[in-house]
Parts: sequence; structure tokens; C-alpha cells
Amino acid sequence: MTRADCVELDRQDPLAGFRSRFALPEGVIYLDGNSLGPPPVAAAAAVGRVISAEWGDGLIRSWNGAGWIEAPARVGDKIAGLIGAGPGEVVVADSTSVNLFKLAAAALSARPGRPVILSDEENFPSDLYIAEGAARMLGAELRLRPRRRLLEGLGPEVGLVLLTQVDFRSGELLDMPGLTAAARAAGALSLWDLSHSAGAMPVHLRAAGVDLAVGCGYKFLNGGPGAPAYLYVAAHLQSELSSPIQGWFSHRDPFAFAGSYQAVAGVERFLAGTPAILSLAALESAVDLWLEADLEAVRSKSVALGELLIGLVESKPELGLTLSSPREAGRRGSQVSFTHPKAYGVIQALIERGVIGDFRPPHHLRFGITPLYTSFCDVHDAVETLAGVIGAGAHLDPRWEARARVT
Amino acid sequence: MTRADCVELDRQDPLAGFRSRFALPEGVIYLDGNSLGPPPVAAAAAVGRVISAEWGDGLIRSWNGAGWIEAPARVGDKIAGLIGAGPGEVVVADSTSVNLFKLAAAALSARPGRPVILSDEENFPSDLYIAEGAARMLGAELRLRPRRRLLEGLGPEVGLVLLTQVDFRSGELLDMPGLTAAARAAGALSLWDLSHSAGAMPVHLRAAGVDLAVGCGYKFLNGGPGAPAYLYVAAHLQSELSSPIQGWFSHRDPFAFAGSYQAVAGVERFLAGTPAILSLAALESAVDLWLEADLEAVRSKSVALGELLIGLVESKPELGLTLSSPREAGRRGSQVSFTHPKAYGVIQALIERGVIGDFRPPHHLRFGITPLYTSFCDVHDAVETLAGVIGAGAHLDPRWEARARVT
Repeated sequence: MTRADCVELDRQDPLAGFRSRFALPEGVIYLDGNSLGPPPVAAAAAVGRVISAEWGDGLIRSWNGAGWIEAPARVGDKIAGLIGAGPGEVVVADSTSVNLFKLAAAALSARPGRPVILSDEENFPSDLYIAEGAARMLGAELRLRPRRRLLEGLGPEVGLVLLTQVDFRSGELLDMPGLTAAARAAGALSLWDLSHSAGAMPVHLRAAGVDLAVGCGYKFLNGGPGAPAYLYVAAHLQSELSSPIQGWFSHRDPFAFAGSYQAVAGVERFLAGTPAILSLAALESAVDLWLEADLEAVRSKSVALGELLIGLVESKPELGLTLSSPREAGRRGSQVSFTHPKAYGVIQALIERGVIGDFRPPHHLRFGITPLYTSFCDVHDAVETLAGVIGAGAHLDPRWEARARVT
Repeated sequence: MTRADCVELDRQDPLAGFRSRFALPEGVIYLDGNSLGPPPVAAAAAVGRVISAEWGDGLIRSWNGAGWIEAPARVGDKIAGLIGAGPGEVVVADSTSVNLFKLAAAALSARPGRPVILSDEENFPSDLYIAEGAARMLGAELRLRPRRRLLEGLGPEVGLVLLTQVDFRSGELLDMPGLTAAARAAGALSLWDLSHSAGAMPVHLRAAGVDLAVGCGYKFLNGGPGAPAYLYVAAHLQSELSSPIQGWFSHRDPFAFAGSYQAVAGVERFLAGTPAILSLAALESAVDLWLEADLEAVRSKSVALGELLIGLVESKPELGLTLSSPREAGRRGSQVSFTHPKAYGVIQALIERGVIGDFRPPHHLRFGITPLYTSFCDVHDAVETLAGVIGAGAHLDPRWEARARVT
């Protein structure tokens, strides 16, 4: 596959027009949109308008007049369209961590005779930290099993199965329908973290029978650093579950300031405090852009870009990179990871040359595939830069021996 | 006190220069800064710069390069300077609700033989909802007592005393040093909500011996709608308490992605998920402005404005307003509340005429006093407008019979 072939693929790409909708700096090939998506061009104006017209001119009146009060449910309904959920099943709230805590605790409380959360020992570490904390608070237990033997841990004492759809290191795409069905057959609820899948591929929560889900707003969804996260509760479960963090935005009538708590009907009972309206405005501008894209086309291009990346890297065995993502495209999310003994140095040298991927310990190079703004030529040029770095030994620079805290 | 007197007071006001630092619309007298403070002029540019230069150009590199990773502690240290806390005792995180949950749960867990949270039955309702939820999750109990008889509920089974420094309805300023000392003498921890006090007056957490505190970023601190909140943990308690929501930002080394959780030392162990950087930028621009103000001067002017408002209203008994705030200035926060049988209609008619206060059920008119942008003439003119509304019967308009959800 030559660069001329890539130019031709880009020319035929039905998604090519989306590139100009993102504010990417000149001279950068950005392969880290699975860690922090770049801003939609519309985000700056959207947030600016909220600050000047809604916060500034509208002041307190904007809770009603500018629709702030409905924003968590409104943007949640838009995200629902990206993840195969129905209206009224998703709200935007808090961070992924806080949402995971709320749903894990609610699930355990709703299954009092089943005090075990089952998860995969390779699950995203923060998800496991949160699950362990929620379990401890409720006198329950977090049980970890190797991914391939997860179901061996699924006994009658398991109340919740907690999994992430796409592995953050390898990009492995888990079998959501199969694992959800197994959890249900064993009498457990299922809770999926979509942080590394939503926005990069079609997700089908309802079709898979998923009970609960959370996801991040700032990775593939491009909502901005620390964007509000979202959570999903299947409609049939909403009246059965209650949030441990019963703040006023989960109250049936928050502005009545009633002395006693009464949860609102619906998924909004998993709101807690006042929503972060400025950050929500950036997220909404990004989600509106996503709603214009055909997620099947996004997935097709993601697979094609991933195959191209793997093919080009493997055509250069002298680089010493070993694929650590599943080779089969159907088992891969929208990232490709390789291992290299000096992975940290390779990534740092690439970043200096304008190719931004990321490092994950102990020795993974991770490249996010983001079809709305990544071209076939980008992938080609990134591999050429990679070859240049390793060929010249730039990754062995002593500066990379001292590892920065965030990479 | 005539309008000419107010003009003269404004002329002599040492804080008058701050007015131009806030983006307030023309023709509005804003007496609701205790509900949502208006934007600092600097906020729009600060957030715009974060979007274009840091998120857009810096992308993922901004976690280190633009100081995002330190933002919760950096802004927390700035807020510490407003509330009498030391460096390393405050972080910005989540919402007030979520922070209250974390600290209440941590306190109960640290006092296992004392499974009762004691609070004032007139405390801010959302704080009570949160405390009830945290207590239930831990098999503990929320005990409420009338404010005047609070200490009668303080037995050896009480692990935490939860109070708000300024009452949201009446503006009553509670005796923080006395109540904190009583809690400590009884072996309980103290947790204060500063949402209606910080930024409006000097707060002295350390001097009062307060153990734990939370506060809101969007009221008197002007951080924007749903701004991140903050929390305080006295230095000597930090190693003893652990957060129930142990997300990756509370980990000792979040980007090592270690399989096991280890809390970071210090108050940052009460962070949870990724901080909302756009909203944090607006809050930081506001806090920077506050750090320029002398809070003793703010308090003096607040008292003077409050006395003026009460005096002018009480000089017009025909209005039918009854003071529901403490008459003694030393027992009042930075708001003045009155009752009126048609309070909702009065507030709505005032808002239509550009005087924005708010209504709190059942029949309170609440006027926030915000000395950095409210003048003596504002207060004078607001009372004239109020007299015009009631004199003309505008508050009896049938439109106000159907109450909006947010006022």
C-alpha cells in the first residue's frame, strides 16, 4: 500500500468532509482520540454563547429560559441514539467514576442476596478501584477472574457483572451480547463501561439486553477534557434501582426544597448535584456532530484504517513492534496496540515529530483510530515517521528514561 | 436614607471598582448572586483559551503542559485562602452533593462505633437527602433536631455533625466555632457546608477547628452554572479518612494503571474521576478575582447593604413584608429574606422589571447581597421597584398562580 493508494482511498472516503469540523493543529497526526478527542470547531462558539448570553445575560433565569434544567436528559437522549438505547434511558452526569459507583452500588442494593461483583482482572483499573470501594461500603466483594475464564466465576452469589466493552490496552472488543446473556441467565445484572467503544462503532445496548452502562464524554465523543460522563439504566429497571448519592437533581421536585427525599421517576434519579453547564455545552456540540455521522460507515473506515496500520507496521519487521491487539478486525475496537521494549521512548519521539499516540505501561504503544478526522494518508505518514524514529534510534534518547507522570 | 445618600455611599465605596469586572447585563439589578453568581469578565477569555490553545492545540499533552493535572489542587489552594484553610487542605472536585457524600461516608467509616449523623432539621434539603443516602448505605442513621436544640441530639453514638454555615432560606449565620467545639467535645467529627457563606464573608475553618467542609463554586464564588465544587479535609485527618468513590484521580499513581488501588497521600485522595477542565477554568478565573478582594471589606459592605435593605423595606410597612432573616447583622449571612403572602408573584413581577431576587417556598422573598457588584443605589432602586410592584398590584397577576419549576 503506497502513499498514492492512500491518497486515492482518502479521495473516495465518504467521511472525509468531517475532518474540517474538528479544530486540529497544523502539522499533527493525532492518534490519541481514544484518550482525549480534539475539539469540534463548533465547541468554542457554543461554550462562548453559554457564557455570554445564557450565564451573563440570562443569569439565574437560564435554568428555565435556556434549557439548562433539561440539559442532562436532553444530551442523554442524544447519546442514547449513539449506543442503541431508547429515549429516557440515558442521562449525562458527573464523571464515569462517579456514575460507575452509583450504578454498582444501586445494583448490589437491589440484589441483597448476591453480594458479589464479578469482573475481568484486566478491566480498566479505575473501574476496578471504584467497584472495590462500592463493594466494601456495602459489605460485598469484588471477584476478579481472567478474561477467558470469566464465566467460571459466575455463581448464584454474583449480583453484578461489570465489564468494559473495549480493552484500554489491547483494544480487544468483548462479546457484549454473549456475556450479558450469561450474566442474565445466572440471575446477575450487567454493567458495561462504553468509554472505549461509544462513538467509535455502533453500540447496541437494548439489543444486547444490557441492564446498566456508563461512558466517558471526552474520548471518542470529543466532549472536552473531563467532559461530563453519561449513564444508562434500562427502562424496566429504573423504578427498582435507587442512587446512593441522592442529591437534589434526583429529587422529584428539587425546587420545592421539601424536607424529605423522593426520587424522581426515570433515569434522572441517577443525577446528583447541579450539572456542569459549561462543560455540558461543549459535550452537546460534539454529540450533535456525532449524530450527523453514520456509525456503520465510521466502523467500516475504522476497520480499514486499523488494517492499514497493522499491514504497514508488519511490512517493516525491522521496527521490532509486536501486535498486541487482536488480529481479527471483528474482535478489535477502534485502536491498535503494539508492544516494543522501548515503547515509552518511541511514543515520546513520535510526539516530538507531531505524531501523537500514547504509551500504556508496561510497554504498549497505543494508536487510536478516529475515522471522522483521521485519513489514510495520516496512517501512512505516521508509520513512515515511526520507521524514521526507530531507524535513527531517536527512541533511545536518554531523556525518555525518566518517565513523565502522564504520557 | 435618600437616593442621594446612596450615591454618596457608592462614591466612597472602596470596592466600587470591582463592578466593572463582572459581565452584568444593562438594566438589571441582580440580587441573586447567592444562587448563581454572574460571570467575571475574564471568564469568557479564560475558557476560550482553554478550548483553543490547550484542548485544541495542546490536545492530550495539556494534561502536563497546561497544568490540567494539578488544577484541582491548584484551585483548591486558592479557595483555601478564602475559607481559612491551609495549602493542601482543599481540592476542587465534582459537585457539592458528591463531595458531601464522600466526606459523610468517610467520616462514618472512620467512626465505626458511632453510626449516627446529627443535623439540623432546617439544613439545606439536598444536604439532608445526601446524608440520609450515605447513612443508609453504611447501616447508619440520620438524626434531625430543631436548630435551637441541636446539641440535645449529640450523644456518644454520633460520629458526625453536619451543618450549613448560612441558612439558605433565612440567611441565619450559625455559630461555627461553638458548634464545632461541641461536636469535638462529644467525640464527633464536624462537616460544614460553606455554599452560602464562602466568598461573602471571611470563613475561618482552621481557627474554628473544623474537621471537614464542602462548598459550591457557582454561588458567591461566581464559577458558573454547575461549577465544580470543593472540599476541605483538615490536614491531621487526611491519612485517617478514605473516599468511598476511589476513582483513578485519587490513586497514588493514576497513570501507572496498577491493578490494585492505593490512595494518594493528602486531600487529593478525595478526587474521583477526571476533573471537568473547561468548567474549572471558569471557576479559576472567578477565584482569582476573589483573591484580589479584601473579605473583611466585603463583609463590612455586605452588612451595610443588608442594613440599608432592611431599613428601606421597613420604612414602608404598607408593603406587607416581614423580615425573616435575623435582625442582628452579626447573625446574618449575606442575604436578606422577607416573607409575603404572595411572595412568588412579587418576585416574578420584580424580575419582569429587571430586579432579580428569588423565591423560596413557602413564601420567602430572598435577596442576595453581593458587595463586589451591588451598589447602594442598586438596593435603593430595588426597593423602589418593589414598592411600585406592590403598590400597583402587579404581584397579583394571574400568571403567577401557576408556579414555574425553577424561580
